[in-house]
Amino acid sequence: MTKLNDQEISDIIATAHELADAARVATLAHFRQPGLDADSKETVRFDPVTVADRLSEQRMREILARRRPQDAILGEEFGRTEGTSGLTWVLDPIDGTRGYLSGTPTWGVLISIRDAGGPIYGIIDQPYIGERFEGGFGRAQVNGPMGKGVLKARGARPLSQAILFTTFPEVGAPDEGAAFRRVAPKAKLVRYGMDCYAYALIAAGQIDLVIEAGLQAYDVQAPIAVIEAAGGIVTDWHGRPCHDGGRVLAAANREIHAEALALLNT
Amino acid sequence: MTKLNDQEISDIIATAHELADAARVATLAHFRQPGLDADSKETVRFDPVTVADRLSEQRMREILARRRPQDAILGEEFGRTEGTSGLTWVLDPIDGTRGYLSGTPTWGVLISIRDAGGPIYGIIDQPYIGERFEGGFGRAQVNGPMGKGVLKARGARPLSQAILFTTFPEVGAPDEGAAFRRVAPKAKLVRYGMDCYAYALIAAGQIDLVIEAGLQAYDVQAPIAVIEAAGGIVTDWHGRPCHDGGRVLAAANREIHAEALALLNT
Repeated sequence: MTKLNDQEISDIIATAHELADAARVATLAHFRQPGLDADSKETVRFDPVTVADRLSEQRMREILARRRPQDAILGEEFGRTEGTSGLTWVLDPIDGTRGYLSGTPTWGVLISIRDAGGPIYGIIDQPYIGERFEGGFGRAQVNGPMGKGVLKARGARPLSQAILFTTFPEVGAPDEGAAFRRVAPKAKLVRYGMDCYAYALIAAGQIDLVIEAGLQAYDVQAPIAVIEAAGGIVTDWHGRPCHDGGRVLAAANREIHAEALALLNT
Repeated sequence: MTKLNDQEISDIIATAHELADAARVATLAHFRQPGLDADSKETVRFDPVTVADRLSEQRMREILARRRPQDAILGEEFGRTEGTSGLTWVLDPIDGTRGYLSGTPTWGVLISIRDAGGPIYGIIDQPYIGERFEGGFGRAQVNGPMGKGVLKARGARPLSQAILFTTFPEVGAPDEGAAFRRVAPKAKLVRYGMDCYAYALIAAGQIDLVIEAGLQAYDVQAPIAVIEAAGGIVTDWHGRPCHDGGRVLAAANREIHAEALALLNT
């Protein structure tokens, strides 16, 4: 891991919060407003990219250009900007654009910073609720409608007592969906549709598992930082690092992670 | 419809808000707290009833006993209390208990009042977000994180451009699921897991359709009042009133309602 002194850590945390504050303003300026339209980036799936996505990332990039021009940036909307520090900011200006376009309160802004080893600090922010989950540099906390609280993933329980989330019931390609359906019927409860908010719920000690496929690096790095800071574990479906996206298994603890991993690979 | 004078209407609206305020306190006292446990009312499905459910309904019943002892009550947790006014308060102290237990922000408190013809006023309240949707007696409004706003369901668009929500992908019994899957692939976007919040999104002009099955009277009466006040339409899957629950088709406008209805009955 990159060696950072206290002053640099403070500056990174302050910068991350400034990014999240700016993204709140940018995303809420368009949320639930009439006339919000979506372009389609893909021809097969409906994948809207809105004005708000681009505005949110632009605002964050302006802040980084001023405060931390030495760092690289990887953003969903505007791609990669090189840096010299060995650190990269990974930005998803709106995770869950479909949820955003539908008016739900479970999309989020994902902000993280990584070194060569992976994410070292991250924020999951829900602007409409006014709720911010952060993890890394010894922090694991939420600040929201009920004030500040500590994030701590919950302890081990068997899958038969566990709560499992995924965003889309089909969970990626047919073979990925089939693997998911080896796990899902064995859980106490399966819920859908929460986008990045589901990862925050693992960190908050509310649920046990999130299983998803087809993710990008910017979808998963902030959740990894927040969940690991809260004591949870996030890997791909073979137990390997998943910083670059793909198939993701996020778990509240090692025991439930192992139980789900075994079923995914049956 | 029961004839009510202005003073009585004012008292009903003030009472409904007092109920919603009390339910907010009761539900948030337990939300995301450690040790929240769920009994199971059913043996087949996981259907948690928590301390918070019962506390929330008890607090509302205490207010009604004091303010409006002449009205009947139908509540999820404590059943029916008779009245003499011809009006019945229909209460779901926590709609979406599974979501509540999972820490999501999309469960809600449902409060409505009906006469012999059906619901005449209703509230969908989301305590954690601090967001209240209300409709009836000429009102159709939301009060939430972005302040007050008017509720207006959105205009007609073809199903191929529409957003459809349901809570569980299986949507009730197998034949009900099959009917749902005649509609779903024709929509632009299908989303899951929002509980009563999905109905609020129709009233807020964000989405076009909600299709569900197996509902109870207390699940649907507040959504009916709020959606109809916002210009939408809510019926069963044959276009008939659905005040007593069962299969529900909620729509932003008559055109999309007709298109979905035809497919459900193909």
